[in-house]
Amino acid sequence: MIFTYTDKGVCAAKGFRAAGIHCGVRKNKTKKDLCLIVSDVKCSAAALYTSNLVKGAPITVTKQNLSDGKAQAIIVNSGNANTCNSDGIEVARQMCALVEKYTGIPASDVVVASTGVIGQKLSIEPIRNGMQTLVDGLGYNNSDDANEAIMTTDLKKKSVAVTFTLDGKECHIGGIAKGSGMIHPNLATMLVFITTDAAISSEMLEKALREDVKDTFNMTSIDGDTSTNDTLCVLANGLAGNREIIVEGEDFEIFKQALRAITEKMCRMIAADGEGATRMMEVRVSGAADEDSARKIAKSIACSSLVKTAVFGADANWGRVLCALGYSGAQVDVGAVGVDFISEKGEIAVCRDGSGVEFSEEKAKEILLEDSIIINVTLKDGSASAKAFGCDLTYDYVKINGDYRT
Amino acid sequence: MIFTYTDKGVCAAKGFRAAGIHCGVRKNKTKKDLCLIVSDVKCSAAALYTSNLVKGAPITVTKQNLSDGKAQAIIVNSGNANTCNSDGIEVARQMCALVEKYTGIPASDVVVASTGVIGQKLSIEPIRNGMQTLVDGLGYNNSDDANEAIMTTDLKKKSVAVTFTLDGKECHIGGIAKGSGMIHPNLATMLVFITTDAAISSEMLEKALREDVKDTFNMTSIDGDTSTNDTLCVLANGLAGNREIIVEGEDFEIFKQALRAITEKMCRMIAADGEGATRMMEVRVSGAADEDSARKIAKSIACSSLVKTAVFGADANWGRVLCALGYSGAQVDVGAVGVDFISEKGEIAVCRDGSGVEFSEEKAKEILLEDSIIINVTLKDGSASAKAFGCDLTYDYVKINGDYRT
Repeated sequence: MIFTYTDKGVCAAKGFRAAGIHCGVRKNKTKKDLCLIVSDVKCSAAALYTSNLVKGAPITVTKQNLSDGKAQAIIVNSGNANTCNSDGIEVARQMCALVEKYTGIPASDVVVASTGVIGQKLSIEPIRNGMQTLVDGLGYNNSDDANEAIMTTDLKKKSVAVTFTLDGKECHIGGIAKGSGMIHPNLATMLVFITTDAAISSEMLEKALREDVKDTFNMTSIDGDTSTNDTLCVLANGLAGNREIIVEGEDFEIFKQALRAITEKMCRMIAADGEGATRMMEVRVSGAADEDSARKIAKSIACSSLVKTAVFGADANWGRVLCALGYSGAQVDVGAVGVDFISEKGEIAVCRDGSGVEFSEEKAKEILLEDSIIINVTLKDGSASAKAFGCDLTYDYVKINGDYRT
Repeated sequence: MIFTYTDKGVCAAKGFRAAGIHCGVRKNKTKKDLCLIVSDVKCSAAALYTSNLVKGAPITVTKQNLSDGKAQAIIVNSGNANTCNSDGIEVARQMCALVEKYTGIPASDVVVASTGVIGQKLSIEPIRNGMQTLVDGLGYNNSDDANEAIMTTDLKKKSVAVTFTLDGKECHIGGIAKGSGMIHPNLATMLVFITTDAAISSEMLEKALREDVKDTFNMTSIDGDTSTNDTLCVLANGLAGNREIIVEGEDFEIFKQALRAITEKMCRMIAADGEGATRMMEVRVSGAADEDSARKIAKSIACSSLVKTAVFGADANWGRVLCALGYSGAQVDVGAVGVDFISEKGEIAVCRDGSGVEFSEEKAKEILLEDSIIINVTLKDGSASAKAFGCDLTYDYVKINGDYRT
């Protein structure tokens, strides 16, 4: 299926309003720091969270609120992760209570998330003081404000939506995401919020999500650090009027394709906007013994500091690709490995049968200097394939993270 | 046991000569690139190698030559890893044959290793042309030349030796190591060569090595990349005249302590001289449920790009320490975690019971600006402990690796 993309984000689907303001969690007044997304009606909801043992307090509260598979609003602050704070859960609950007070949506139907520095107390004051302005700002075409308010070191908004048809009805699905450091499987994102007007049960929504992330957010890495606050949440309000998806079948497959259309795009956006990144790197592995091996190899290459610095230098140092493949933990016939570098400038073979082949360094450089490059790895172990999304490792990554708190 | 260290390296033990020259594998004539270490008599030998599936050709040859547990010489080139080359094994064999031709030591008693760029053909010509000069340079007090010849991006020589007593006889053990990138468990080093005049069987030597690396080389990480060429080799020529160690017991314990004395020191040296490093970081974990958990946590923290950049910035961002602990894979009572930063300037508590405590940012900065810092993590899950050795992630790491080949 071919999808047409728009940038309407969480407001592409009918009945979703969004807002984003600066309330004062951040000192910098030019940066928005509070986001609200609400649906006109109650939604089926599903979410996945970080696998990190150290979890942000908002995750505990969101899990409780989503235990019935229903939600109607999402509130998010940036600038403070509300993690490793003794009063974190209480503050996260207060955020939900404020949504109830100002919108009438029950606190137990609110998804709450925070992103920013770990281990600093989050004051509820600026959020409380900002609520009226936030609610006043809610609009049906306001996804960008919401997107800006969840950004931390992100340089670009990550907003995407597509239209599709279910049961003869026009449906929409769209989302906003923030990166851009502490990104690693599983779950390879800080925050992603997706809305759809398709009707689907929360069980099927969760099933769709779990299947999707295996090839998308769990295959994206910026720096190998799995965040404490990762939350991927989907709300489905059913306003498109299609017959509700409650079992597998054709409609479920179409829904999953639409979901994949936006999640894969978001992963590429997150990778391209990785902290300090100058170029996006996609690692494609084919001919692997099985899917698990293919994913392990693709991730290992995409996560290698040495591959990432070589990509920064546009250096065709394919030996590092083989090195990362070799320590991936997957069983591989090393003597059969092929490596090509691909970009809009063309493609070049650099390794065949596990050994180097003659190639033009000049041509390789030209290919690798593009904004977006593909490292294509071919194996002869089977027929499984996988893709991983990453970026280069640069001076700016070090700069951004050498003094993040100040 | 308290050991007194010397810098005699591989020449500390009786009957070992060493040499290092520039032969032309490298273009830069100011850099030595060929190393030879020989014993006056045949030695018990043991070695451990990279766990990377992609292995340097020299490893295949060394494994064959060590299959009888005996060796008498080590030849090493830097500047080219002789890995992923179709004729690599043949070239490695030629290197051993050259040692036989010029020293009389059988090729089958030669350990061969290479370090440098992966995937470029290694010409035997410069090595052949340099052999006479190399052999002429062999000396009983020449460890430094050998050390220089195995360095790649290393800025400092890593040479260490201690004296100990076995069976009333004075024994020596010493070694040389090279880092300094592509360093990650297991085995966390590129090349380490150790010599001793103690008499010990090759079986017990291997046993001692395997036990030792669990807490030393396998706990050292610069950049998370496990090299293709890691080789850790020990030769024991027995010239100290002690009763040969052939079983566990008091002598074996003393030998292991002497071995640990030099390997732990080497790990600190490797970490401190990590590519681009400005400071060495030691992560200490105590109170873990078991040793495996303790090691996992210590390594996870030492390997985190975000912890490493924070250390570069002397930023007391302890939340990243908790984050890395949380995704280590070890089970931890997160609510009981404590974190302190320690250096010669003092120590400071930054986290207790999994939450932040008030601390002076000024004092923390002062502590973290030292060349060598300790991140001390205390758990309440048991009584196991571990140490991991690493360094900060800096602009220079990116610079060095962004264009390593040119």
